[in-house]
Amino acid sequence: MTKEYHSALAMHGLHKGKMEVVSKVSLDNTKDLSLAYSPGVAEPCLEIAKEPTTVYDYTIKGNLVAVITDGTAVLGLGDIGPEAALPVMEGKALLLKRFADVDAFPICLATKDVEEIIQTVKLMSPTFGGINLEDISAPRCFEIEQRLRQECEIPVFHDDQHGTAIVVAAGLINAFKLTGKDLKTAKIVVNGAGAAGIAIVKHLLTIGCKDIILCDSKGTIYEGRTNGMNPIKNEMAALTNPTAVKGSLADALAGSDVFIGVSVADLLTEEMIASMNEGPVLFALANPNPEIMPARAKQYGARIIATGRSDFPNQVNNVLAFPGIFRGALDVRATDINEQMKMAATVAIASLIDEKDLHEDYIIPDPFDDRVASAVAQAVSEAAITTGVATLQVMPTA
Amino acid sequence: MTKEYHSALAMHGLHKGKMEVVSKVSLDNTKDLSLAYSPGVAEPCLEIAKEPTTVYDYTIKGNLVAVITDGTAVLGLGDIGPEAALPVMEGKALLLKRFADVDAFPICLATKDVEEIIQTVKLMSPTFGGINLEDISAPRCFEIEQRLRQECEIPVFHDDQHGTAIVVAAGLINAFKLTGKDLKTAKIVVNGAGAAGIAIVKHLLTIGCKDIILCDSKGTIYEGRTNGMNPIKNEMAALTNPTAVKGSLADALAGSDVFIGVSVADLLTEEMIASMNEGPVLFALANPNPEIMPARAKQYGARIIATGRSDFPNQVNNVLAFPGIFRGALDVRATDINEQMKMAATVAIASLIDEKDLHEDYIIPDPFDDRVASAVAQAVSEAAITTGVATLQVMPTA
Repeated sequence: MTKEYHSALAMHGLHKGKMEVVSKVSLDNTKDLSLAYSPGVAEPCLEIAKEPTTVYDYTIKGNLVAVITDGTAVLGLGDIGPEAALPVMEGKALLLKRFADVDAFPICLATKDVEEIIQTVKLMSPTFGGINLEDISAPRCFEIEQRLRQECEIPVFHDDQHGTAIVVAAGLINAFKLTGKDLKTAKIVVNGAGAAGIAIVKHLLTIGCKDIILCDSKGTIYEGRTNGMNPIKNEMAALTNPTAVKGSLADALAGSDVFIGVSVADLLTEEMIASMNEGPVLFALANPNPEIMPARAKQYGARIIATGRSDFPNQVNNVLAFPGIFRGALDVRATDINEQMKMAATVAIASLIDEKDLHEDYIIPDPFDDRVASAVAQAVSEAAITTGVATLQVMPTA
Repeated sequence: MTKEYHSALAMHGLHKGKMEVVSKVSLDNTKDLSLAYSPGVAEPCLEIAKEPTTVYDYTIKGNLVAVITDGTAVLGLGDIGPEAALPVMEGKALLLKRFADVDAFPICLATKDVEEIIQTVKLMSPTFGGINLEDISAPRCFEIEQRLRQECEIPVFHDDQHGTAIVVAAGLINAFKLTGKDLKTAKIVVNGAGAAGIAIVKHLLTIGCKDIILCDSKGTIYEGRTNGMNPIKNEMAALTNPTAVKGSLADALAGSDVFIGVSVADLLTEEMIASMNEGPVLFALANPNPEIMPARAKQYGARIIATGRSDFPNQVNNVLAFPGIFRGALDVRATDINEQMKMAATVAIASLIDEKDLHEDYIIPDPFDDRVASAVAQAVSEAAITTGVATLQVMPTA
């Protein structure tokens, strides 16, 4: 299709949504029906009843991901409800298909209750090979994901957390190849303590960063802070801000090497950037308008800037991560998407850019670079096997 | 596709299931992504948040049916569990697409608890325009359907009940055109008090039949019977068997005009058929082997026989009903599939056979007769409008 639309609304309206469910087999005559439906369909049913793992051989389960939301944190729009979230979930499902040939299906839930969400997802899980949680607000999203990872037999992944964290970390690894600094000693400020901010901090700790300050709208998060805390922020306070810096974002940024914003537009000032160490690296990921526009950031002395936008260089786009991650997890029937698998995805994305090609406007691969999903999938499958969460021990052939 | 398979198992294994989820829009470049996903997708999200009914304009909801089971009564295989039921649900979903261009998606639930099933379906209903319940065992299926019809805003239809009842009733109407008998005075015996049997009785009462005896494995059901009863059988006892016939199926059949079996193979004997009134009509619907084979039934004096099999004439195949019913309900955004809509579907199916074409081996249209789904849809849409359950008051153009 090459149809042009005068707006995204027109495009969504023309087809009434973006996806359809189609057959992979012919259904044109009585013979076809007798194979795909009654009576022939009893054959795979009986096989699966006898040996449950053959559900992966005879049904869509092994290639199927549920994209699940409660509509509470949709894009930057907030709590717009399950129906209004459906266009995003359809889009997300289609990106899984487009980039990694994973079939995916949106399910928008009419509840915000943590227990009801967990229960509903568990009860519908027999159909699916994996669960992608999407646009569920923090801090509820942390408990929902954690519990579902424990209680489901299939992998569960909250993309707003880990997809973002993985791509940010990949970009940061490459940025540091250019600046020559060391992630282990760099001072990193993360602004925004929602799903993405928390996950970025955790993932940066996993890849070896040690000096991270997390800020929310009330300033730096430190052990002993009492204002506007919650269990996950308390957990972060214990893991970050080793010198217990108190104060504003500006206080945190003084003498730092990296700013990572998952917060609001137009937040970074000239003074803040000037207060950072030599050659600052900025990930200004607020959408649609970043914490600072790239041209201005450069003017104020930023060495490298990444945003969430496709019209600037270095786009932090989750589509670099989640399709290949699910492809890799499904290919070996992983029962979890663990930290090592996320780390493997991070390294795979970073490694796609050869050192000779690396420059300040190319620290993150292009979303349409068709090497990305297969490289991520391969790395994730290998990590699943290595860490013992793969059900199949054989790597798929490309 | 014209691929031949050496078995239904091989066919299911070759593709790992039968369905896939594909895009109706292009996703080939940054522009495409900005329309189908971020940032453009915010436009339909905001429209729906502002005016919730536009979810039908901008998403798949209005053309999407969930095919939901708990795996407790799958084909004739019984309680084989949700995973083993998935091949059937995939097939069912694809029949909706093939025959009425309705997108449908299987959801197999890991619970048999009535309340949990109801709650799970309700919570996932924002995504869907309709709910098709499938292969849920009696008597649980009756409460589940009844409650969901009351508690969901979208139409809920248990095909094992009503699909079968509608096609049987259509065939019976045509059979009586040939025998010249009157449904209002005919004596009808239904054998099998599960989902299909109960629904057949109820639907025959709706279309005007008055003298029906329902039998289960313990014989006729009558008011005051205490052995092996349950709430739905008690309800049936009050509505049927006006002369309170007690005894076996054979006792019920003596002097009857119609036998409808949704029971077990090889049940009807020469004596039973001989005991029926002149020109008996038999619907021997046990699958895969009917209560009596057609050739033998004719030999014993049956005038008309229908079965569930595609290799005999007069196949009672639900695919004649449910695709057009959902098409018709979705087309006018019906909030329910009520008795009048089921009646309209019945009459539409029966009427597709001209009186001049009607004969003993052609009382039911062929499943691949491409007039069926549109005729059923049209009749169902009209009935929805007439009975006030249609949200749209305009008939779709064919």
